[in-house]
Amino acid sequence: MQAIAVSRDSKGPICIEKPRPEPEPGEALIRTLRVGIDGTDHEIIAGSYGEYPADEDHLVLGHEAVGVVEDPGTTGLERGEVVAPIVRRSPNGESVYFDRGEPDMAPEGSYHERGIIGSHGYFSEFFTSQAQHLVSIPSSLAQVGFLVEPLSVVNKAIELATASRSSFTWEPTSALVLGNGSLGLLMLAHITSTDTYERCYCLGRRDRPDPTIDIIERLGATYVDSRKTPVDMIPSTYESMDFICEATGHAPHAFKTIDALAPNGVGALLGVPESSSFEIDGGALHNELVLHNKALIGSVNSNITHFKTASDDLQTFPEWFIDSLITDVYPLSEFRYAFDNNDDTTIKTAVQLSAYEER
Amino acid sequence: MQAIAVSRDSKGPICIEKPRPEPEPGEALIRTLRVGIDGTDHEIIAGSYGEYPADEDHLVLGHEAVGVVEDPGTTGLERGEVVAPIVRRSPNGESVYFDRGEPDMAPEGSYHERGIIGSHGYFSEFFTSQAQHLVSIPSSLAQVGFLVEPLSVVNKAIELATASRSSFTWEPTSALVLGNGSLGLLMLAHITSTDTYERCYCLGRRDRPDPTIDIIERLGATYVDSRKTPVDMIPSTYESMDFICEATGHAPHAFKTIDALAPNGVGALLGVPESSSFEIDGGALHNELVLHNKALIGSVNSNITHFKTASDDLQTFPEWFIDSLITDVYPLSEFRYAFDNNDDTTIKTAVQLSAYEER
Repeated sequence: MQAIAVSRDSKGPICIEKPRPEPEPGEALIRTLRVGIDGTDHEIIAGSYGEYPADEDHLVLGHEAVGVVEDPGTTGLERGEVVAPIVRRSPNGESVYFDRGEPDMAPEGSYHERGIIGSHGYFSEFFTSQAQHLVSIPSSLAQVGFLVEPLSVVNKAIELATASRSSFTWEPTSALVLGNGSLGLLMLAHITSTDTYERCYCLGRRDRPDPTIDIIERLGATYVDSRKTPVDMIPSTYESMDFICEATGHAPHAFKTIDALAPNGVGALLGVPESSSFEIDGGALHNELVLHNKALIGSVNSNITHFKTASDDLQTFPEWFIDSLITDVYPLSEFRYAFDNNDDTTIKTAVQLSAYEER
Repeated sequence: MQAIAVSRDSKGPICIEKPRPEPEPGEALIRTLRVGIDGTDHEIIAGSYGEYPADEDHLVLGHEAVGVVEDPGTTGLERGEVVAPIVRRSPNGESVYFDRGEPDMAPEGSYHERGIIGSHGYFSEFFTSQAQHLVSIPSSLAQVGFLVEPLSVVNKAIELATASRSSFTWEPTSALVLGNGSLGLLMLAHITSTDTYERCYCLGRRDRPDPTIDIIERLGATYVDSRKTPVDMIPSTYESMDFICEATGHAPHAFKTIDALAPNGVGALLGVPESSSFEIDGGALHNELVLHNKALIGSVNSNITHFKTASDDLQTFPEWFIDSLITDVYPLSEFRYAFDNNDDTTIKTAVQLSAYEER
């Protein structure tokens, strides 16, 4: 079968031939329908993130996938069921975090991430997985189910942020998403799909006309141009925010979030920046956190419960949003185009590895 | 009656004569037993914090108090009951935060703080208060009940921090308190009095012999000298910490806390530093927060529920701890000594305004 991988010898992603995997006892064989591309894939390709499987010269990419059960083996799944796989695996099979269904809370070094860290991903015509790492999703999501993974990351962050405000009466009305990439827009779609917030904002650095600004406004949110209004100026220009989600990976934003929060507000951080030093007024930020009961919450990855909520969410999102977000789906033969992310009209790309046929 | 105040004309705290307050309808008259002194008092005296009541040339100090009901009026309290007053008041009487019993979450500008911001404190022979702002405490705490307020601040911080970890299974074993002042030691006494943490640490910058180091070690905790082991070096020298409480007001500590936390850990910030700029590796800290699901929580003030828990706590603390923590209690005539905090043998001071007599 064909697979898309990075290898020690190649510069960009390449298409390689691999044997179709044989499911181990307890595993199902999944025929891959589509795989989405995100910033982590680009970081792996650039060599700034990720880890090859032990003793391997390549890493099959792909951690946002939707597939269909080809051979359920002894898993109890049914042939033809549509599934989205979670990302983390316990390399030696024993982990209290995995046992309790919270692999997303496992400490670094104790897990693999398929398609990212130490384990091949889903970017191949078939993959195998134990049933406990597969979430059944409705067949109506067969085309777009690769969005369940990034949306589960959104759900995990919201869960952590909300928990942090659960010891008192928190009645947020304003929310801001930092970043108009696909993750930011999924977060914005989520928060505008609930009744929680009366006013939503999304920050980017784009000129009109721009498809992401169109999406932001069609979702009923206000576009904030970071070139005109830096994050710490948002309260004076717009309003201070009860909830902020950072989805840029731009470290200064994480700290300016403290200034942009309303009293009792919480900032959820999702970006994964590299080392970069800069000066802050740490005294003022520390003071601001304390005197206004503010919180900053880092969040990474997600677990089965977040995947299930994400699958529910995705069914409630307007069709126009999904259509606008997924700008291109390429056939496997044109996979390279899915990694081109250089123009402002591309939002989210995916590759189709096989077609879904209603049974 | 006599009161201890700061005035626009005086440099330090002064003793002034004021009329004994007349309780308004719904208020009780409280005879003050003891008032504790803390860092906020010193900041008010230094002119770097606090606010005079409108149209007044002085501010009566005192926000950590224990008193006895002298005249219950129509409050339903009983004469002779021992009480600790909470700090915040709603200046115009209407506040959703006060109505729901969460004045500690009220935004700046919407509250007064007795003895701190806009309202006279408890540092007088008598004070009045509505019953809803008074917490009845056992008469066994009549001598030390001024510790209920700072201990309630500890409880509020722990409540917020614990809530922030409530969406997943959090099983902390290690805790670190930054700061060996009275608030830090109260936090340490609290966390060592529970079974939550197997290993506790407390950071200071003192040479042995030192009474705070003696307390830290008698509580079963490990003393960490910040001059030898800066906060960000604590994981490599000792271990990374599931819970950190910052009680120093030293802003760099707040940010180094991120490095010292274990995966899934939470840092509660209590200090109130002034503006001060410094360089951080913001990229690495942002990354660390995200990839390890870490949280930073600011916490200020406390409400009735935290006072009640603090009163319960205080009864469980070993007698030697309270005796060692309260280094001096001065009579009103010697109140000035209670504000001298220049030697390393002073931990917590208080002034006795009247004696408690068991009825």
